[in-house]
Amino acid sequence: MPDSSEPLPGREPTVSNDRLVLVVLTGAEEPAPDLPAGLLEQLELRVTDAAGLAQALEGSELLLLWDFFSSALRDAWENADALRWVHVAAAGVDTLLFPELVASDVVVTNAKGVFDRPIAEFVLACVLAHAKDVRTSWDLQRSRVWRHRETRELRGSRALVVGTGSIGREIGRLLRATGVDVVGAARNARADDPDFDVVVSSANLSEHVGDVDHLVIAAPLTRATCGLVDAEVLAALPPNAHLINVGRGPILDEDAVVSALEEGRLAAASLDVFSTEPLPGDHPLWATRGVSISAHMSGDVVGWRDTLAQQFVDNAHRWLAGRPLLNVVDKELGFVAPGQPNGSKEHM
Amino acid sequence: MPDSSEPLPGREPTVSNDRLVLVVLTGAEEPAPDLPAGLLEQLELRVTDAAGLAQALEGSELLLLWDFFSSALRDAWENADALRWVHVAAAGVDTLLFPELVASDVVVTNAKGVFDRPIAEFVLACVLAHAKDVRTSWDLQRSRVWRHRETRELRGSRALVVGTGSIGREIGRLLRATGVDVVGAARNARADDPDFDVVVSSANLSEHVGDVDHLVIAAPLTRATCGLVDAEVLAALPPNAHLINVGRGPILDEDAVVSALEEGRLAAASLDVFSTEPLPGDHPLWATRGVSISAHMSGDVVGWRDTLAQQFVDNAHRWLAGRPLLNVVDKELGFVAPGQPNGSKEHM
Repeated sequence: MPDSSEPLPGREPTVSNDRLVLVVLTGAEEPAPDLPAGLLEQLELRVTDAAGLAQALEGSELLLLWDFFSSALRDAWENADALRWVHVAAAGVDTLLFPELVASDVVVTNAKGVFDRPIAEFVLACVLAHAKDVRTSWDLQRSRVWRHRETRELRGSRALVVGTGSIGREIGRLLRATGVDVVGAARNARADDPDFDVVVSSANLSEHVGDVDHLVIAAPLTRATCGLVDAEVLAALPPNAHLINVGRGPILDEDAVVSALEEGRLAAASLDVFSTEPLPGDHPLWATRGVSISAHMSGDVVGWRDTLAQQFVDNAHRWLAGRPLLNVVDKELGFVAPGQPNGSKEHM
Repeated sequence: MPDSSEPLPGREPTVSNDRLVLVVLTGAEEPAPDLPAGLLEQLELRVTDAAGLAQALEGSELLLLWDFFSSALRDAWENADALRWVHVAAAGVDTLLFPELVASDVVVTNAKGVFDRPIAEFVLACVLAHAKDVRTSWDLQRSRVWRHRETRELRGSRALVVGTGSIGREIGRLLRATGVDVVGAARNARADDPDFDVVVSSANLSEHVGDVDHLVIAAPLTRATCGLVDAEVLAALPPNAHLINVGRGPILDEDAVVSALEEGRLAAASLDVFSTEPLPGDHPLWATRGVSISAHMSGDVVGWRDTLAQQFVDNAHRWLAGRPLLNVVDKELGFVAPGQPNGSKEHM
């Protein structure tokens, strides 16, 4: 972790008339955002897709990865001769980070904060849809069958949230507001926490899930979290438990999830992220009993792209003014380290 | 409304050795509850179905309508020669009340409080399932189609709850805890209310729904609420609105709901109650675009019958001890009047 007394990354104010070059990497579903005139008049803008990235990067100081899951920078790295700052319009930076970038002086910032509340709401929707047996109601409706059932109470149920970053914390706060008892799991266990009843160590997760109704994965994908929720953790869950993944696919052993569901050792799984996205059409998860699939969309509420663009614009103005950037990713850890300045509040 | 200084209904303690007769009306799906020995030794118990009610009622002072939607008492009324107290194991008493009972001295109590929290959770599940487009995800999953969509944010959306009794209030509290702006609608408008941002008059409901995202019906069925949410109210809703009915079917004009949904003037309707239950197999609501149907089950969480039985037992002990009953229904109003003692807290 960087020394917190160290000056934060930012650019010295320029006195030259040469305008900085900003490259915006777009994708088929991510056309370039409308950037405000006040920013554009201070920059030379180069909008490109992955194929043109290498050429566009030459002499460029700033890169906005608007196509946020792209790994094109790795291939174009040799041409990044002037690059100093990369902003990723996503919360997770796992698809971006590669050894040369990590080792370099290039600053990486992310979209921390933008997705916190929407993802927390999505998790609550998953929890309630399961508790209130909504899917069975819809299945019965298609057959015009009236069948009264008893459902589960949310209040007093128990959740464990893997990941105590800003997303995990918002999940904790929202679930607690609805009467759920919420434990967090993180690298470091601690007894007193503002957002969780308690935080346990994720290193021995299976010891803490024996009474969990809702196991929520909301961690970044890092070396420490890859494969964290494995067959052992799933075996330790009670058979009525519900697994929710809004973090990253590889945190979860998907084969073990399929087995646990098929053998009745797990009641349900609501999965928004997968090891391979889009989820291949022949993947067993599509049709496994108790699985609910959504297309990596938990944080993407109406207006999300505008919010992401505004967050980048604010950070770009900071860069141009020589002020410290917000949401600087610790490239070794793979996320914005606790205590780093972030703009969560500004973009909520 | 009864004068609050009037003594509350209760029985004078008996000095006779004759045991009181308690009739328990059961149904095909409502077998008799296990009543505790401490109560049974003070009562003569007669368990009956509707066919035997008239005979069982003779000489009986107490009636527990465990088959809570039964209207059998009306047919057996002539035989209720000693009846003094009827307890209905439901929140709504609309199917029970008939003119002779209303005009009589027989006290009616209900299950106020038991369903508040479960119903509020069910409403939140409906709100979130719609906001997060959960049904579309499940539809796409059946076809193994990966399709990212933007969903709606819950925080900052606007709900109007028709009915400010204990159920409506719990809905208001829970929705507000998740960041929803919540207005109530009741007979009497008021600016300051502990559970709602404001309470508007339900008499001119259509004037208050122009910016409502979620219109929630949580009122009892009375002369004042029958047909309250009619074509005019539905026409005043914005086209993206979502209608939720956990009150009673006849509060809503079901034909008008079908028209509004089919014509795109209403986005969705989550309906748990209907004018005819079970909903007939040929009813258009089953297949109307945007309708989600459940089988009058919003408040029925695991353990609900035990909670209902305990609530009756507590009230029966009060009766036997000559203490005031809880949850006495104002038979003219059709619900427990505000300010009446109730056991909500005891059974939450």
